[in-house]
Amino acid sequence: MSVAKPKADTLDAFFEACIGVVGPRHFLQDADAVKPYGRDWSGAYFRTPLAVALPSSTAEVSDLVRLCAGHGIPVVPAGGRTGLCGGSVPMRERAALVMSLERMTAIREMDRVGRTVTVEAGCILETLQDAVAEAGLAFPLMFGAKGSCMIGGALSTNAGGSNVLRYGNARDLCLGIEAVMPDGTVVNGLSALRKDNTGYDLRNLLIGAEGTLGIITAATLKTLPQPLVRTTAFLSVSDLDAALTVLHRVQDHTGGAVEAFEFMPQPVIDAICTYNPAIRSPLEGPAEIGILLEVASSRPMDAQLNEEGARALEVDVLTLLADLVEKELILDATIARNDQQRQDLWTMREMVLEGITHAGVAEIFDISLSLKHLSSFVATAKEQAARFGFRSLVIGHLGDGNLHYAVMGAEGQDPADLPMDAMRAAIMDEVARLNGSFSAEHGIGQSKLDQMLRYKDAGQLAVMRRIKSALDPQNLMNPGKLIPLASTEVGTGRSWQP
Amino acid sequence: MSVAKPKADTLDAFFEACIGVVGPRHFLQDADAVKPYGRDWSGAYFRTPLAVALPSSTAEVSDLVRLCAGHGIPVVPAGGRTGLCGGSVPMRERAALVMSLERMTAIREMDRVGRTVTVEAGCILETLQDAVAEAGLAFPLMFGAKGSCMIGGALSTNAGGSNVLRYGNARDLCLGIEAVMPDGTVVNGLSALRKDNTGYDLRNLLIGAEGTLGIITAATLKTLPQPLVRTTAFLSVSDLDAALTVLHRVQDHTGGAVEAFEFMPQPVIDAICTYNPAIRSPLEGPAEIGILLEVASSRPMDAQLNEEGARALEVDVLTLLADLVEKELILDATIARNDQQRQDLWTMREMVLEGITHAGVAEIFDISLSLKHLSSFVATAKEQAARFGFRSLVIGHLGDGNLHYAVMGAEGQDPADLPMDAMRAAIMDEVARLNGSFSAEHGIGQSKLDQMLRYKDAGQLAVMRRIKSALDPQNLMNPGKLIPLASTEVGTGRSWQP
Repeated sequence: MSVAKPKADTLDAFFEACIGVVGPRHFLQDADAVKPYGRDWSGAYFRTPLAVALPSSTAEVSDLVRLCAGHGIPVVPAGGRTGLCGGSVPMRERAALVMSLERMTAIREMDRVGRTVTVEAGCILETLQDAVAEAGLAFPLMFGAKGSCMIGGALSTNAGGSNVLRYGNARDLCLGIEAVMPDGTVVNGLSALRKDNTGYDLRNLLIGAEGTLGIITAATLKTLPQPLVRTTAFLSVSDLDAALTVLHRVQDHTGGAVEAFEFMPQPVIDAICTYNPAIRSPLEGPAEIGILLEVASSRPMDAQLNEEGARALEVDVLTLLADLVEKELILDATIARNDQQRQDLWTMREMVLEGITHAGVAEIFDISLSLKHLSSFVATAKEQAARFGFRSLVIGHLGDGNLHYAVMGAEGQDPADLPMDAMRAAIMDEVARLNGSFSAEHGIGQSKLDQMLRYKDAGQLAVMRRIKSALDPQNLMNPGKLIPLASTEVGTGRSWQP
Repeated sequence: MSVAKPKADTLDAFFEACIGVVGPRHFLQDADAVKPYGRDWSGAYFRTPLAVALPSSTAEVSDLVRLCAGHGIPVVPAGGRTGLCGGSVPMRERAALVMSLERMTAIREMDRVGRTVTVEAGCILETLQDAVAEAGLAFPLMFGAKGSCMIGGALSTNAGGSNVLRYGNARDLCLGIEAVMPDGTVVNGLSALRKDNTGYDLRNLLIGAEGTLGIITAATLKTLPQPLVRTTAFLSVSDLDAALTVLHRVQDHTGGAVEAFEFMPQPVIDAICTYNPAIRSPLEGPAEIGILLEVASSRPMDAQLNEEGARALEVDVLTLLADLVEKELILDATIARNDQQRQDLWTMREMVLEGITHAGVAEIFDISLSLKHLSSFVATAKEQAARFGFRSLVIGHLGDGNLHYAVMGAEGQDPADLPMDAMRAAIMDEVARLNGSFSAEHGIGQSKLDQMLRYKDAGQLAVMRRIKSALDPQNLMNPGKLIPLASTEVGTGRSWQP
């Protein structure tokens, strides 16, 4: 079934045909040139591609995919390769062509009346955001990789991040896509329509499919008015249930204006401050449950200054926070008084990964749960980790129920000496018991195929396999990723290991 | 291929097996009892079902679907049958069992922490809204059929309505579904998760699939804080471009708080007032382009009363409207001063269908366009209609680009004597030229199959057919609807004809 290594003569003819499509300059075969395309940001997955094709248009993508189908060569679509699950690089077991969309960077249309933007897959997220900002609008997808990740990859993985609470995932910000299917057919669904009930939702089928059903070549995205004012605060609360009460109170008080509600317990802050002594803990005493809160408004009224130079939104949020302190729901709070203080809070937040990696974290689970289960899960998981000799650190996008649950060896313990597999299974079983997700925002790629087999609803998995077989009967489109086709095709089962 | 009429002995055995599942009381065979299930709200499509099964649980739905698959009997899932496209009744060409979900009405869980509700498919929308309101929350899907339509149907057709601008379609309000696939497998995707990147998006594939890929049996839905204050106004503007500018100004001024922006030209208002003389035109002079505007906020600050007893949101909106009148973007405006005045405006809006039907409208097109194309489309379509001897009336959910474009014979002209097919084709060609949708919110059912063939992107249609064949290889699940499987299988091509 799998193409371990295509025959050399087949390959030569295939390469020649590919060069006919993109030209020799944009078809990389040199070992040094193709090597970077064998690795994503995780660094955990590596296989040198057969070659790398760099198409400049949807027509070229289509021609290349047809060649792959005709020659039986697997193809791995790639963008910024900022994923952590090996989704954008060939699998060890399967030689493949990498098709990088990096040359397809055009912003095809900025529609100020409809407040949409149509952009090609290779456009970098931050580049798009800058262009949209120039038109006085915002594209609010926000995560650490924004300076490197490309729109096609963000959609293919349904990227999340820290603003999902307010604006949704990549999926929720997309109105239409153009894609090349596994047989080379171009599907034109670049609709800017808010309502269109004419058949199956192929847009959402391709979004989050991690390139296994086709290659997204362009998308029409929603844009929103730019926030005129932001209020950013760091809060300390006594426990997770109190944190959720605070979230609801702030949402209700502001009419749902919370952009970020990021969970940062004191041990994580300590780890960051140890890693980078220039970072200072935002509160004087320990914040048992620290929350980075950001509220934003595009309403001019909220940006108005009072006599003391404070903006209306800030005054409104401060009034509420004072009331919540009074009621002892919040133990302590600090509010950013200027851009620098806001930036300091976010710098701390964005240094989480480096901080906990430096502290010796061995693996990070990307899970989500119903809000009502968060508190009990964190308690249970901590006990389970301890039972196997691990300490845990947990951060997350609390408003979405999305936790990044990290484990490290207890003091003086090398995690390599500990039963990682058993601990992982215990924690993931608990997630499953609570009907949570074992991959909230990072996706599956080649990293969590055995978790798909173990935890994904069997009925859903069967339907996915049927769809994959129907649309990609040769299994050439990012093969082996996302959907374990048979029980023998499993990945490492690991979440991300720094 | 199609089952024109199953053999009697097969049918007897099938019926007996069905009765074994749901019991004799819940398996209707009597002619009078099954007759209502052969018709939807349009009244345009009728075929007596073979029988009607009324399952009470997902397990019973699964058992019934397995029986259908085993006996080769087509099954048509039905809810409130408030659709206008014949999607919920058997096609003339295909005898079928109707499976009505009307007994599955349970609200399985109200999660106040996660602000979600899990409900069975047969629950009536308004019943759900009342239950959610008792929990202090809102489920904001809003359209005329809310007192009769059921959640399963609302999701299967991705229902829209007048609040889509603010809250999205049914799709956008759904977090997870449970469904029975064509082979009887139960897919459990009743997730309340905001983030879950574990495979293909089967939820959105089944939403809007009009029951052709499976039967939605339950769903987990988002709920939102209840608005505390609403401001409702009726505006007169000079043209559609001015209307869109006003929309953007109100959105920007209120931070995106517009719930409804309904387009009602004077001829439509005249038709309503003629139909029901108790209705009074909201403005003194003619409103060439009338707009019913509603802004809502769940923010306590917006509900505060000033010294004169006016709410803050109302004052804020009035200030803006006065400024827009000053700038001559708005020609005239009236604001609802109390609940009765608000209700009067909505009563007028909700009488549109009766009003224009009474005026002699022959067909209503349910189309959507990019906002930038609305103005030119309306002008072109009016000319085209006139060329064939028709007058046109147009209303719509303007903020979504969704127009209900209605045509009637010119004064003294019976539309039956006019070239309806040619006029319809001319208008639909123009919609297609502008990359609009020929079915914005009503769906396809059996009514627009030939428009699917003519206007739907061929690549998308091919993919849909593959998915349908892969998941329903016997073509028994609401067969013939939505996806024309071959060029011979076409519907009437009509939009809704009152």
